[in-house]
Amino acid sequence: MKIGRLNHVGVATPDVEAAAKVYAELYGAADATPAKDFPHLGVKVIFVSVPNMQIELIEPLGEDSPIHRFLEKNPKGGQHHMCFEVPDILAARDAMIERGATVLGTGEPYIGAHGVPVIFVHPKNTGGVLIELMQDPAFYDGSEGR
Amino acid sequence: MKIGRLNHVGVATPDVEAAAKVYAELYGAADATPAKDFPHLGVKVIFVSVPNMQIELIEPLGEDSPIHRFLEKNPKGGQHHMCFEVPDILAARDAMIERGATVLGTGEPYIGAHGVPVIFVHPKNTGGVLIELMQDPAFYDGSEGR
Repeated sequence: MKIGRLNHVGVATPDVEAAAKVYAELYGAADATPAKDFPHLGVKVIFVSVPNMQIELIEPLGEDSPIHRFLEKNPKGGQHHMCFEVPDILAARDAMIERGATVLGTGEPYIGAHGVPVIFVHPKNTGGVLIELMQDPAFYDGSEGR
Repeated sequence: MKIGRLNHVGVATPDVEAAAKVYAELYGAADATPAKDFPHLGVKVIFVSVPNMQIELIEPLGEDSPIHRFLEKNPKGGQHHMCFEVPDILAARDAMIERGATVLGTGEPYIGAHGVPVIFVHPKNTGGVLIELMQDPAFYDGSEGR
């Protein structure tokens, strides 16, 4: 198992629209999706595209949002995770466990904001960095399994 | 002024060799440079390459390292900055100031770990995210100025 390209950097923010405005107006990165709610993930998301990746702006949605704790510690927001593509999410999950890492949640891949299955690896396994692994959409047949 | 591709994500760590080992052994990202000291920057760096960008692993070097404070807050390490390429670093610096952002240090671009001039924009201007802008090496003639 080997990670592929960086798909996105996740950036937590109290306000995705305000954050997208900063990337557009300060940095000229105006290629952004409309804000979209993902109630099952507890987040509201805007993707800002630069030529080789996306910045995933993430705002908490609902009481149980996984972003709340991060924003309590970092009220202005900040870099939350890095997401790398993998050709086979289940093989990647198995490799993480075999190599001694902790996969968050149930350990089962679930559909993330890109519409493909993802897992998250605990920051303790990667020097404090939360890592998301994402099924490479080019190899995805619409099922969550193999 | 418009940012180009993400060149790297900067990741602070107490030990670049140990961190590089994690990216190699856990994630299969074994394409890494040897550790290199940059005394004028106060950091020791390893670059880990994935297909579309690099992870810049940064360890403090010396008493005045700019990474000390970050590691005090985040002893295990964590995501420190995002670095985007710009075609003209001085034009980018001027645009940042004109658009109301705070450029760190003297405001003059200086040679970073990639051997090209860089500036850093204060995290307060980008929702808690420290942003580095880096002269695109393809447009760099070896001078720090225009």
